[in-house]
Amino acid sequence: MPQNVAEKLIHSHLIEGTPEPGHEIGLAIDQTLTQDATGTMVMLELEALGLDRIRTELSVQYVDHNLLQTDEKNPEDHMFLQSAAQRYGLWFSRAGNGVSHPVHQARFGRPGATMIGSDSHTCAAGALGMLAMGVGGLEIAMVMAGDPLYVAMPEVWGVELTGTLPDWVSAKDVILEMLRRHGVNGGAGRIIEYHGEGLQQLSAMDRHVIANMGAELGATTSVFPADRAARDFLTAVGRGHEYTKVVADPGAAYDVQEHIDLSTLEPLIAKPSSPGNVVPVREAAGEEVFQVVVGSSANPGLRDFAVVAEILRGRQPHDRVSLDINPSSREILEDLTKGGWTFDLIRSGARIHQSGCMGCIGMGQAPAVGRNSLRTMPRNFPGRSGTDEDSVWLCSPETAAAAALTGTITDPRDLDMRCPRPRLPDTYSVNTRMLLPPLGEREARDVELVKGENVKSLPEFDPLPDDMELPVMLTVGDNVSTDEIMPAGSRVLPFRSNIPRMADFVYLQVDDTYPTRAAESHGGHAIVGGDNYGQGSSREHAVIAPRYLGLRVVVAKSFARIHWQNLANFGVLPLEFEDPADADRISQDDVLRFTGLRAVLESSVRVPAQLNGEEIALTHRLSERQVSMVLAGGRIAHRAGEDPTIEAKPSPPEG
Amino acid sequence: MPQNVAEKLIHSHLIEGTPEPGHEIGLAIDQTLTQDATGTMVMLELEALGLDRIRTELSVQYVDHNLLQTDEKNPEDHMFLQSAAQRYGLWFSRAGNGVSHPVHQARFGRPGATMIGSDSHTCAAGALGMLAMGVGGLEIAMVMAGDPLYVAMPEVWGVELTGTLPDWVSAKDVILEMLRRHGVNGGAGRIIEYHGEGLQQLSAMDRHVIANMGAELGATTSVFPADRAARDFLTAVGRGHEYTKVVADPGAAYDVQEHIDLSTLEPLIAKPSSPGNVVPVREAAGEEVFQVVVGSSANPGLRDFAVVAEILRGRQPHDRVSLDINPSSREILEDLTKGGWTFDLIRSGARIHQSGCMGCIGMGQAPAVGRNSLRTMPRNFPGRSGTDEDSVWLCSPETAAAAALTGTITDPRDLDMRCPRPRLPDTYSVNTRMLLPPLGEREARDVELVKGENVKSLPEFDPLPDDMELPVMLTVGDNVSTDEIMPAGSRVLPFRSNIPRMADFVYLQVDDTYPTRAAESHGGHAIVGGDNYGQGSSREHAVIAPRYLGLRVVVAKSFARIHWQNLANFGVLPLEFEDPADADRISQDDVLRFTGLRAVLESSVRVPAQLNGEEIALTHRLSERQVSMVLAGGRIAHRAGEDPTIEAKPSPPEG
Repeated sequence: MPQNVAEKLIHSHLIEGTPEPGHEIGLAIDQTLTQDATGTMVMLELEALGLDRIRTELSVQYVDHNLLQTDEKNPEDHMFLQSAAQRYGLWFSRAGNGVSHPVHQARFGRPGATMIGSDSHTCAAGALGMLAMGVGGLEIAMVMAGDPLYVAMPEVWGVELTGTLPDWVSAKDVILEMLRRHGVNGGAGRIIEYHGEGLQQLSAMDRHVIANMGAELGATTSVFPADRAARDFLTAVGRGHEYTKVVADPGAAYDVQEHIDLSTLEPLIAKPSSPGNVVPVREAAGEEVFQVVVGSSANPGLRDFAVVAEILRGRQPHDRVSLDINPSSREILEDLTKGGWTFDLIRSGARIHQSGCMGCIGMGQAPAVGRNSLRTMPRNFPGRSGTDEDSVWLCSPETAAAAALTGTITDPRDLDMRCPRPRLPDTYSVNTRMLLPPLGEREARDVELVKGENVKSLPEFDPLPDDMELPVMLTVGDNVSTDEIMPAGSRVLPFRSNIPRMADFVYLQVDDTYPTRAAESHGGHAIVGGDNYGQGSSREHAVIAPRYLGLRVVVAKSFARIHWQNLANFGVLPLEFEDPADADRISQDDVLRFTGLRAVLESSVRVPAQLNGEEIALTHRLSERQVSMVLAGGRIAHRAGEDPTIEAKPSPPEG
Repeated sequence: MPQNVAEKLIHSHLIEGTPEPGHEIGLAIDQTLTQDATGTMVMLELEALGLDRIRTELSVQYVDHNLLQTDEKNPEDHMFLQSAAQRYGLWFSRAGNGVSHPVHQARFGRPGATMIGSDSHTCAAGALGMLAMGVGGLEIAMVMAGDPLYVAMPEVWGVELTGTLPDWVSAKDVILEMLRRHGVNGGAGRIIEYHGEGLQQLSAMDRHVIANMGAELGATTSVFPADRAARDFLTAVGRGHEYTKVVADPGAAYDVQEHIDLSTLEPLIAKPSSPGNVVPVREAAGEEVFQVVVGSSANPGLRDFAVVAEILRGRQPHDRVSLDINPSSREILEDLTKGGWTFDLIRSGARIHQSGCMGCIGMGQAPAVGRNSLRTMPRNFPGRSGTDEDSVWLCSPETAAAAALTGTITDPRDLDMRCPRPRLPDTYSVNTRMLLPPLGEREARDVELVKGENVKSLPEFDPLPDDMELPVMLTVGDNVSTDEIMPAGSRVLPFRSNIPRMADFVYLQVDDTYPTRAAESHGGHAIVGGDNYGQGSSREHAVIAPRYLGLRVVVAKSFARIHWQNLANFGVLPLEFEDPADADRISQDDVLRFTGLRAVLESSVRVPAQLNGEEIALTHRLSERQVSMVLAGGRIAHRAGEDPTIEAKPSPPEG
């Protein structure tokens, strides 16, 4: 039977299970990617597991999130990560080398490979014909320890692209169109596979833009075929020999079908404060703009910066606008400089920041309250910019540059100039000096982990009790993101390797009494959510920190994929309402009562509970493997129980 | 009688007083410079004074300190400053345009002019033959309102330079040699005037390096003649027509004399944690280095970065070292890029940050605890880097680059390469797009101040009571810097326009109970200090915030100049021990009692007081003008009382 690209990638890596939508399958994973905001926890998990050396083909630890270094915590995390990468056999990408996704694509991307990453935008690697998924950190630690990745087999959603993009419309507008059509949950349970003749004009970095923001649709991942665009890219970055063709068989079918005629697209923009609030730019035209930020894994390519430089060349941004440039990698900044575009940007008044995620994750460049900030980034969840009452819009580099010039939201087609078509070089800069290779096995064993004061070993979590009476500590609405559960930003991110301190910030913007109330409720507690609970970033801190405060059960109308996995991985029971309307029956301080949980979970998907003494019907979607994991208190404890070659180390007492 | 340069500058601007060392003189001030960390307070002072338009020839408001924008406070301060500059008739240098001192030298520096700035490194302008002094913000507000600057006439200290700098030794080593010889208080009460044939090889930007760090010697300012170097510089920046020759008359004498034979100098380095701890680099060679930061007003010139780029060209920093580059201005970054040096730096792994003060003031790039950081910056006071237990060293660009390469402190003469001599362009980039000119008078009156939530009007302070019983809230040792009194860094700086919040951080590192204890002691309190109390930064917050907490009197063995002025300006009485040994008689919680202060201060320099009931002999150095100012509760209240054209506005109640 003819296979599409997603099926080829899955079948070639299938270890367990039947690849039918909804069934749990186990996949062999070739590569992993971790970044510093989530990776410190992964390294602490490797330590807790007592692992000697990773068993993946290739794993890379990046430092791209926590770069501001407003005190010693960031640099000490960097030193810890460098030592852990050396100890366990990972590559290490030093602070300043760039954002993980574009660096990985340039240096390690390989058509036909599988990858997981503790960053929700790991899916960007689908641009090169990889099956790449964002997951919680513990999934990665387990894959590094030799486990397969367990995942519910998604549907494959074929999106056929035809026609040619008009002037001033670029890859970002394609993914914004998908978000306009389907919203932030439209891709749940699906792999999006792009195909059709419209692909020909999209370079590998254009495809990166589209694959990257598949995360915003809630998709499991996105894939593109590895065709001429992948070959050209790999050749340009000096790795043409790693090219393999991976394309759909003629006549391959898709579970779901969709079509976009690229020639009908126009410049689009996501309004505050959701990537799903997409409208044509012209409908928002005229709004005053105070900041424009260009960069991030959503528009990381040389082209994306060069276009902005060419629009600005010889011109001056509006006096009101701060124009901030976040180069996505050092290699790209090198090429921007070689090509003269860095000069154009500096000359036109841009503030050039170090290479990294920066403003995308609220590490600097926060906007003023209520003042519009246009960004080429992937997310504009409330407060993610670092400013609680922010007003952040998401758009293409062309639309961003137009706003910088005029000081208002402007359809770039209304600029009085020719659409720039930057002449990109045939070969890109290759510079691996900030990318340290793994040490040899013997050398690695001698490496001591360098732990600053702020690097705390992982807390241990006890098994799930059979009977529980849990007060509902918080009830929240639909589409709550992990940015709301566990804020990022410059105040919180430095504690990413310190769960006890991190816990002080859980749900800070939603209800700042939650951490205190939760900590005081010693018998554990529950949280009740709406649809798509836990969307956005893959951060497992959004589970570990509330678990540390006593969270035992989350009941929601539905869950975002990665967060659901993270809950199970750390022994928090994720339950859904049989009747979503029941969510309205629950208020804060109500009590949920569970009895005989082990027997219930092992025998049925239905989980009866009592709400203030009355019956309420809940369900779970855990596999058998996951049930025993949750009961054991999470995956580390469970794994230690079943694999004698890996021994869970009790955390040393903290001084 | 033949005059030296300092005398010429003073005599040509003398309005009041006799220019004999120690006498208070009044000087006409041509220009002012304010930056964002101190300037928000100056603008709030203009508001409190009810000023309509500034009366100086030229005033420039820079934004260079608070650039990280970790939340809305920084960008809202920037908007406030832009609106205030427009309202009151100042130039405005936008965020990203660069560090005030090099930008001012390039765009506004004028031989023969006087300038004051609310930044202790304002003295850098002495490089062009200006008399430029760092002062507290209120001095500037008053000069903007038309007052002269009152200052005790300093001695003039002639430093004759002869000989030629050896390879690998540069301007930074000259000022480090001065600090090695004289320590952080060696220049107190003096203007340092450099002269002699050794000057010929020092460009205007080399002279900037030396003049800038005169602040670290505690000098009132430093001056160089305006000779060929000034003319070449002004020509290179497109302002040759503004050159005037200002040189010492033949036979001019100096109050104090000194000689440095440049050919005998070697690479020097200031050890942690004082700019005065200077030793030859070779004596510290071999110490492990984890960070190298290049930039700041202490080494801001194109040459200073180009030298680093040429040392690193084609080489790779040590794996342990984070190499951070803080371009000092956009124009300089433009020239660095044009000359290919930016490319060299990126290629060799440098993290390029936006133009501004950045790490120098603890806005990012903090080092790990106890890990050596080598910086080309002017100061290494404890904690100024953002890390409480930091280990920061100060050195030349050559020494910094050598350490980046080897990962250890290294005498650059031991590098196996030729000493780089970058070929600088004859003309520099001129780019004034981020420098907004003052509005016309009519237009300015229509401008409304844009005040974010965090911009609070200046508190009002009451007159000094005639009789006081003050508990001693804190006793501290010698050389306490304003960084210790009022910390900077990314956590505190965002509150620079919000005194009530700022006050929570006073003396945080020295005794974090001080703010609470002081606030609870409602009848006011005193602080007792050692020698050189209040050295370092000019920040008047180090007076306003403790005054807000009830500080009435500081008794010290001696004071740093700017801080002493700031105390008087805000109605805090600065007193000295007649017998310095008496300092040891006082402990925390002792009580100082003053009676009939008005009569005492108006009639004598001796200020009798009772310490726990016993007599203690104290003195003051206030002029008659300053006495009445202190008694009135500070300069704003005093000025409002005497000048009917300026009306002190009571602060509006805060919502």
